[in-house]
Amino acid sequence: MQHFDQELATLKEKLLTMASLAEAAVNKAIKALVDRDDDLARRVKDEDSNIDRLEIEMDDAAISLLAKAPLASDLRLITVAMKISHDLERVGDEATTIARRSLELSHEPQLKPYIDIPRMAKMALEMLSEALDAFVNRNPEKARAVIPRDKEVDHLNKQLHRELSSYMVEKPTTITRCLSLMVISKSLERVADHATNVAEEVVYLYEAKDIRHSGKGQNNHGTLSG
Amino acid sequence: MQHFDQELATLKEKLLTMASLAEAAVNKAIKALVDRDDDLARRVKDEDSNIDRLEIEMDDAAISLLAKAPLASDLRLITVAMKISHDLERVGDEATTIARRSLELSHEPQLKPYIDIPRMAKMALEMLSEALDAFVNRNPEKARAVIPRDKEVDHLNKQLHRELSSYMVEKPTTITRCLSLMVISKSLERVADHATNVAEEVVYLYEAKDIRHSGKGQNNHGTLSG
Repeated sequence: MQHFDQELATLKEKLLTMASLAEAAVNKAIKALVDRDDDLARRVKDEDSNIDRLEIEMDDAAISLLAKAPLASDLRLITVAMKISHDLERVGDEATTIARRSLELSHEPQLKPYIDIPRMAKMALEMLSEALDAFVNRNPEKARAVIPRDKEVDHLNKQLHRELSSYMVEKPTTITRCLSLMVISKSLERVADHATNVAEEVVYLYEAKDIRHSGKGQNNHGTLSG
Repeated sequence: MQHFDQELATLKEKLLTMASLAEAAVNKAIKALVDRDDDLARRVKDEDSNIDRLEIEMDDAAISLLAKAPLASDLRLITVAMKISHDLERVGDEATTIARRSLELSHEPQLKPYIDIPRMAKMALEMLSEALDAFVNRNPEKARAVIPRDKEVDHLNKQLHRELSSYMVEKPTTITRCLSLMVISKSLERVADHATNVAEEVVYLYEAKDIRHSGKGQNNHGTLSG
């Protein structure tokens, strides 16, 4: 049991490492866009393989743990960790998309100062970070609070989409740049979607467990919260 | 053991039901686009909840099976089934995106006959169907053959993106319609991505098992192929 708990703790650490890499990747990609920093954009693309590798390690660790899991609640927790790791890997992919479009944009005159895009990035990353906090601290209420915020990011994305569409109609020479910005905005909207997925998984994980707990008197098994 | 095998068979059936619903959803969404059929587009959106519900059922069935899985190879298989079910749920979401854009497009004059988009849909769905065949028939070679075809769909998407960009520059009044078609093309590119994910999971599942089999003399446990 001691050994199992240690392995679960390692799984948790790996997930948090992935989370910090994915979050850093999005931040760096947005910084590369705003500062027109091609080196940084290229680094984001190169470093994505680290996140991919961690997802594979997470999967292997999870499979090994599943074989030893004593309780149904452990199984659920491990499979949720696998799902979260997949979402984090996708967040890394979105960072790569943003970095790629930043490289294209930095070779053309800047359209206008970027205000909404860094704001969307901040919102999406806060959602992600709070959903992960909720996972680590076993806090379904906190996870639940993340979910409606997805609508705000959707709203910003739609608003930016409309603005850029009008801009394209007025100045067709900006079409290529506007399309790149639309892709970046959509990528951030998708980061918020992944954060929402994580939040929903956390609610499912802990509220299903609570129901089971109250219904059948099964103990909570808090190895991943410590 | 008998009971475990039956439950695995049920899991497989559920996955194939999901696959056929997801495939049908994409086909219907493309048909709604081509035929400008709003009723069909709305039906695709409404029916997406069936796929979502099946994913939740798959997860519950998988969790229950994990608790009884006798071999590491079973654990791997069950977790791969969960991942595939998630990919299929996302394919359903892409169908909804296509249906939504079809509804917008059918209220405006048609831009040009749709040729590339139905072709991309056909390619992406063939990839998906072959990746699933490879899963059911334990055929990693067939799965491996799916992976490079993703590049062809990417290529078609990029080509269409370029064509639509030029078209927007020439005729700014078509921008809104061109953007909708870009979104649809990107959705199909993503269906092909999900098919590629499924294929990669199948390769991982059966080739990792083969290596383990030859390395440690563990028997294959073929309950999901029957």
